[in-house]
Amino acid sequence: MLQERLNWRYATKKMDPSKSVPEEKVEAILEAIRLAPTSSGLQPFEVIVVTDPEVRAKLKDAAFDQEQLVDGSHLLVFAAWDNYTEARIDGVVTETGKARGGVTEALTGYYDRLKGMYLPRPEEVNFEHAARQAYIGLGLALTAAAFEEVDSTPMEGFEPEKFDEILGLRERGLRSVAIMPLGYRDAEGDWLNGQAKVRRDADKFITRIDAA
Amino acid sequence: MLQERLNWRYATKKMDPSKSVPEEKVEAILEAIRLAPTSSGLQPFEVIVVTDPEVRAKLKDAAFDQEQLVDGSHLLVFAAWDNYTEARIDGVVTETGKARGGVTEALTGYYDRLKGMYLPRPEEVNFEHAARQAYIGLGLALTAAAFEEVDSTPMEGFEPEKFDEILGLRERGLRSVAIMPLGYRDAEGDWLNGQAKVRRDADKFITRIDAA
Repeated sequence: MLQERLNWRYATKKMDPSKSVPEEKVEAILEAIRLAPTSSGLQPFEVIVVTDPEVRAKLKDAAFDQEQLVDGSHLLVFAAWDNYTEARIDGVVTETGKARGGVTEALTGYYDRLKGMYLPRPEEVNFEHAARQAYIGLGLALTAAAFEEVDSTPMEGFEPEKFDEILGLRERGLRSVAIMPLGYRDAEGDWLNGQAKVRRDADKFITRIDAA
Repeated sequence: MLQERLNWRYATKKMDPSKSVPEEKVEAILEAIRLAPTSSGLQPFEVIVVTDPEVRAKLKDAAFDQEQLVDGSHLLVFAAWDNYTEARIDGVVTETGKARGGVTEALTGYYDRLKGMYLPRPEEVNFEHAARQAYIGLGLALTAAAFEEVDSTPMEGFEPEKFDEILGLRERGLRSVAIMPLGYRDAEGDWLNGQAKVRRDADKFITRIDAA
């Protein structure tokens, strides 16, 4: 089931600009991203969903003119926290307390130890850690899109500083790390459609360490 | 369907040591990881599957004694490439040519440009880039486990240098970045089983930019 969906999907190179992804499918994809687990439950990223054609045109200029940004109907921008802060970690403690019937000593103890580890670290180390968590979300997003029979293109080929500028991310403590247009493939116009999927053979990808 | 599986799964804290994950389920999980898309198709990571109890006992000592490493039946170690090299990128060109009927000029041109960007960068930048890709694989792994009704615990709480040493990863140009025990929850013994899932509300996680 999952495997079949993963084989169906591919990094769509040409989308049909006449087709729009229904909002309920976009919602399902966003919900999968929101459910993605992250380190210590921090969810250290946000998702910006851009449909505005003018904004997407500007973003396309900052993404090496890749047409999927405007030919798709929705553009997802994954924006990681620029750093960990006391307030952000306290927010997680509060939310956890709310969901699980109160802020316990074990809960605050855990996150106090986390603060002790994360807050003294260089901002760039914390950002990289947050970015990795955003990539779990990216994995969920592309999987969810495949389940919704929506085409998508996970992309790093864009200029993050320009995206941050256009979307006003830095003042919100966010930095764009990956983007994903959603839309429907232009089956005729996409050179990659129908091409074999390329993956290393399992024996070059997986090592087993079993008891002798 | 996907959403239901994502709500079912949780970071299992206590696994039942008497239960083993059937090999066909492990294979399905590994295949989902192998199908994970990565930047420019590089697949810059490998997966080590450890069942050997003695090796897992050593790894547990390097993972703050977390019991899932030995109470599960399989331990997945995600190990990212320590750097990009000409040989590694050439390997991708060769595989792509094999799968798609020949090495074209467009293909070599694309990867030559990639080499021009990646090879001069500091090793740590390339490693971080590779690590992010491994996290897409981690996202697929935890999703696939949920589909197979297998419990899992995505983890960063381990000492990567010790893991690399025990598994002989550095001499293979690999560095461990995340681990994931597979097994079956000890429903009675796991304090986290049945607890509410904690996620930020959608309105604190998602921003929409629609045309006015």
